[in-house]
Amino acid sequence: MRHLEPTRRDAAEFPFRLEGRARFHHTDAMGVVHHASYLGFLEDARVEYLRAVGRPYGELRASGIEFAVIGVQVAYLAPLRFDERFTVHAGVAHVRRSSFAMEYLVEREDAARVLAGFTLHAALSTTSGTPVRVPEWIGPLVRPVS
Amino acid sequence: MRHLEPTRRDAAEFPFRLEGRARFHHTDAMGVVHHASYLGFLEDARVEYLRAVGRPYGELRASGIEFAVIGVQVAYLAPLRFDERFTVHAGVAHVRRSSFAMEYLVEREDAARVLAGFTLHAALSTTSGTPVRVPEWIGPLVRPVS
Amino acid sequence: MRHLEPTRRDAAEFPFRLEGRARFHHTDAMGVVHHASYLGFLEDARVEYLRAVGRPYGELRASGIEFAVIGVQVAYLAPLRFDERFTVHAGVAHVRRSSFAMEYLVEREDAARVLAGFTLHAALSTTSGTPVRVPEWIGPLVRPVS
Amino acid sequence: MRHLEPTRRDAAEFPFRLEGRARFHHTDAMGVVHHASYLGFLEDARVEYLRAVGRPYGELRASGIEFAVIGVQVAYLAPLRFDERFTVHAGVAHVRRSSFAMEYLVEREDAARVLAGFTLHAALSTTSGTPVRVPEWIGPLVRPVS
Repeated sequence: MRHLEPTRRDAAEFPFRLEGRARFHHTDAMGVVHHASYLGFLEDARVEYLRAVGRPYGELRASGIEFAVIGVQVAYLAPLRFDERFTVHAGVAHVRRSSFAMEYLVEREDAARVLAGFTLHAALSTTSGTPVRVPEWIGPLVRPVS
Repeated sequence: MRHLEPTRRDAAEFPFRLEGRARFHHTDAMGVVHHASYLGFLEDARVEYLRAVGRPYGELRASGIEFAVIGVQVAYLAPLRFDERFTVHAGVAHVRRSSFAMEYLVEREDAARVLAGFTLHAALSTTSGTPVRVPEWIGPLVRPVS
Repeated sequence: MRHLEPTRRDAAEFPFRLEGRARFHHTDAMGVVHHASYLGFLEDARVEYLRAVGRPYGELRASGIEFAVIGVQVAYLAPLRFDERFTVHAGVAHVRRSSFAMEYLVEREDAARVLAGFTLHAALSTTSGTPVRVPEWIGPLVRPVS
Repeated sequence: MRHLEPTRRDAAEFPFRLEGRARFHHTDAMGVVHHASYLGFLEDARVEYLRAVGRPYGELRASGIEFAVIGVQVAYLAPLRFDERFTVHAGVAHVRRSSFAMEYLVEREDAARVLAGFTLHAALSTTSGTPVRVPEWIGPLVRPVS
């Protein structure tokens, strides 16, 4: 896993956002959203972002490619409690030949930064499971850190 | 879904038991195991029971049959808290032509009854998804309520 | 657990609906939404329904009452696959002195009935955990089966 | 989040191991264990390791300290499929004044490396939520990378 510096970008620098709300089934006995639940939030934002750029994930898989998660690197900055609303900001951080990184910032409704981090993805053949080239349309989605 | 009377059987009447422990990721902000987490406990016991009677689920699927969950009927009788140990008692309650019911009793380490209930399963073809006969070896597993 | 007949009501007979989409983290290796994931969908609809009638769950707990899940009875009627949209229809089925039942119908975007069922809830004191009267405002929400 | 180099340690260098099995409710529609499910496996190993060194988590919380997850950094190296057994190897990687890192290696029953990574934890007061000193007994658990 490559080491990436969790974002210092402002929310406004991300191309996509998805709203959500902390549910009971996301929380744990400490009274806050469980750290694993956030990976679902990031996944939801990733899938919706692909749809928003005209690349629904179902079509991608039908075309023979899937994006496996090969790494996760997140910092938890503040807690989310039951029923609090949040926004996941998402974008593509970099693209390599057969992998790419997505970057995220999760903010609470009071604008507190809740999570910052990355997921790393390999482009794989859905039939053989072997690495393939990342589709060309991903490259232009990258927004280099300013 | 057929209506089944949640078990009044004693733990000793069940043919199989699986031990577990309540984890943080099973709990919610009420401080107890979330009601959906128990369905995983029942599933684990079901799969291990099949293995114990010589019918690992992977072999079943390889033979072209899968057991889809078509109903759940459970009563929650007492809470489980983080780190408490529990036992899932499981057995086959009845068998029909292309479906069968599993029965469960979950007890806490202090012997309190935590959950009693059933899951209903349809035998389906893994290729077509259409109903098939329940395999013959399931019938003898039924223990009628005394 | 009282035995309830899973709904034969039409979607139009329910007072509340919540839209959702099947996510990867809801699915299992059979390729469809895992049966436990639906309990989260029902919970989300329940919480949003309470908010819609002016009774956000956080305020309820702040007032000293919580609604513990004491029973689940659901029939799974058709599968949901990754990325399919669905609607949870929800309403109050009956009210007793210290418990009540919620009724649900989940429909796929193609209008196929995916799940029908109930959750049973006990009104408990948040401090002592003992049963209390169901708040008066719930009674008028009941829509008896026609 | 500090950047840590995912382990190149052999399994034998870790002080603790926990056995597990991939369940249906851990998998997703790609047919493999979902990336978020592994965080539960790591949590289970962490809690059991603390118990094994005589520091059950419940006692820790009763003493007024909890270990919040403030970072996760994991690399997914190979897939786990339904019913495959795995071993989580765990240890303490480093300790700071009010935080520490746990290190993990997950291996499949065929000895393939499935996951390598870290979780970062802050020692917090259970009452105020503010940082406190990491308990003294954690320091001696560190095994520096050789």
